[in-house]
Amino acid sequence: MKVSIIGLGLIGGSFALALKKRLESIEVFGWDNSTAHLEEAKRLGIIDVAANSMEEAVLAGDWVILAIPVHAIESILPTCLELLQAHQTLVDFGSSKQLICEAADQHPNRGQFIAAHPIAGTEYSGPGAAFANLYEDKVMIVCDAGKTEEKRLTEFRQLCKMVGMESRHLSAAEHDVHLAYVSHLSHVIAFGLSNTVLEKEQNDAHILDLAGSGFASTVRLAKSSPDMWTPIFQKNRKAILESLDHYLQHLNEFRQMLDTDDRESIHNFLIKGREIRKILK
Amino acid sequence: MKVSIIGLGLIGGSFALALKKRLESIEVFGWDNSTAHLEEAKRLGIIDVAANSMEEAVLAGDWVILAIPVHAIESILPTCLELLQAHQTLVDFGSSKQLICEAADQHPNRGQFIAAHPIAGTEYSGPGAAFANLYEDKVMIVCDAGKTEEKRLTEFRQLCKMVGMESRHLSAAEHDVHLAYVSHLSHVIAFGLSNTVLEKEQNDAHILDLAGSGFASTVRLAKSSPDMWTPIFQKNRKAILESLDHYLQHLNEFRQMLDTDDRESIHNFLIKGREIRKILK
Repeated sequence: MKVSIIGLGLIGGSFALALKKRLESIEVFGWDNSTAHLEEAKRLGIIDVAANSMEEAVLAGDWVILAIPVHAIESILPTCLELLQAHQTLVDFGSSKQLICEAADQHPNRGQFIAAHPIAGTEYSGPGAAFANLYEDKVMIVCDAGKTEEKRLTEFRQLCKMVGMESRHLSAAEHDVHLAYVSHLSHVIAFGLSNTVLEKEQNDAHILDLAGSGFASTVRLAKSSPDMWTPIFQKNRKAILESLDHYLQHLNEFRQMLDTDDRESIHNFLIKGREIRKILK
Repeated sequence: MKVSIIGLGLIGGSFALALKKRLESIEVFGWDNSTAHLEEAKRLGIIDVAANSMEEAVLAGDWVILAIPVHAIESILPTCLELLQAHQTLVDFGSSKQLICEAADQHPNRGQFIAAHPIAGTEYSGPGAAFANLYEDKVMIVCDAGKTEEKRLTEFRQLCKMVGMESRHLSAAEHDVHLAYVSHLSHVIAFGLSNTVLEKEQNDAHILDLAGSGFASTVRLAKSSPDMWTPIFQKNRKAILESLDHYLQHLNEFRQMLDTDDRESIHNFLIKGREIRKILK
């Protein structure tokens, strides 16, 4: 099997490593806009062959995986679809899906394309952050699956299964709204917290030594890559604004309870919030 | 050495276990308003003797540790100080300090009291959540240390050192402002996120299966005890409101950037927020 990975960061690099760990006969072709990342991926054994251009990489694989920032996926998708031969399947791993799906919808090769989102990641980035077990026991969301040829979907599910992932289907529109709430909003929150605390403690950095594991956990996602997240925020702007407005409403309600020292309302707010225990292990 | 622990949850229970692990000759007396917790702490070997009343527990220890919600510390502190004999030292482990210190300041036995805050914890609570290594490599903040007799402070530092903690000094006022930013605000944020997502996904709970480790990390503190956190929010109301207002200001600025699709400002917001990497490992 030949696999081409476009974008050799945490997501693309880990998928390559996951496949190589489990398949005897696999050849991984790679491409990255950053020559440094391309060379690092080769040196780390993430890829077998460093392509000389994106087009060369796209032409090489039975599977072609796009693991680059979402605005870049959207912009190169028509070119990639155009280049595809009949035996090839194109997959994107972007974290927002609606505009990407729209960019593919009118193309005659739409049936060869799978709009996927692996629900996996860490706050680190680049080829050095990639590891073979990132996808174990994780979920792969496939969007607008009805627009992909059934045979390719089945094969993709098997590929996912092999690296430890269960596949789930959602429409691209549903995906973007739900992910705004259960992922993108968490990133906004973490970056907001980080900015707030850094501003307050800028002249007093030793105070951050006093921050416990709670702060570290809440702020962790603020270590994520701005180059990856700026386009996600922009491309899923509408849904993120909706979720952010709901969040701000809850915080403003809490602010009011605190301002009026309303013990019962504060307690109820915490009791309700704590229900998350029943869902998250 | 005799140690009395008032409040046998995660914090008090773990301190007892940490001392028992490292000291051959120690006798731990315990008291908890909940008979179930008192019995559980005895059964789990957290305490050696279950006292018959809080007063009995306070009278028993060379060290008397208050590890109960902050409003309860504030309210029983004068009684405890009144009961103290000359050889006894009283320590509180509350997460807000100014009102607690004020409750002690005028008492003739103020010199026997140490206002401390161990920067350690998990999102779990009760005696069953206690474990002996909670305090290893953590920081113990001691507030208004100048008001405690020097000899007792030295002994307390040694006790902390023994369970793996470095001591740091802050005024109670500084403590409350800084902790609002680096701890209490994170809890507000997590409870706000939890309420937002639970409201949105209440009819669609399977969506939460799609939440990745990022959401789990950001929302983790919403599993914390409402009975412990309602009083902390109330007792450190002023400083938390200040930190929350700064946070809301940053989020509203981000909201504006997103609303106007201002790529450069969004990117800068993330770049600035990501500076937290340099401080948090």
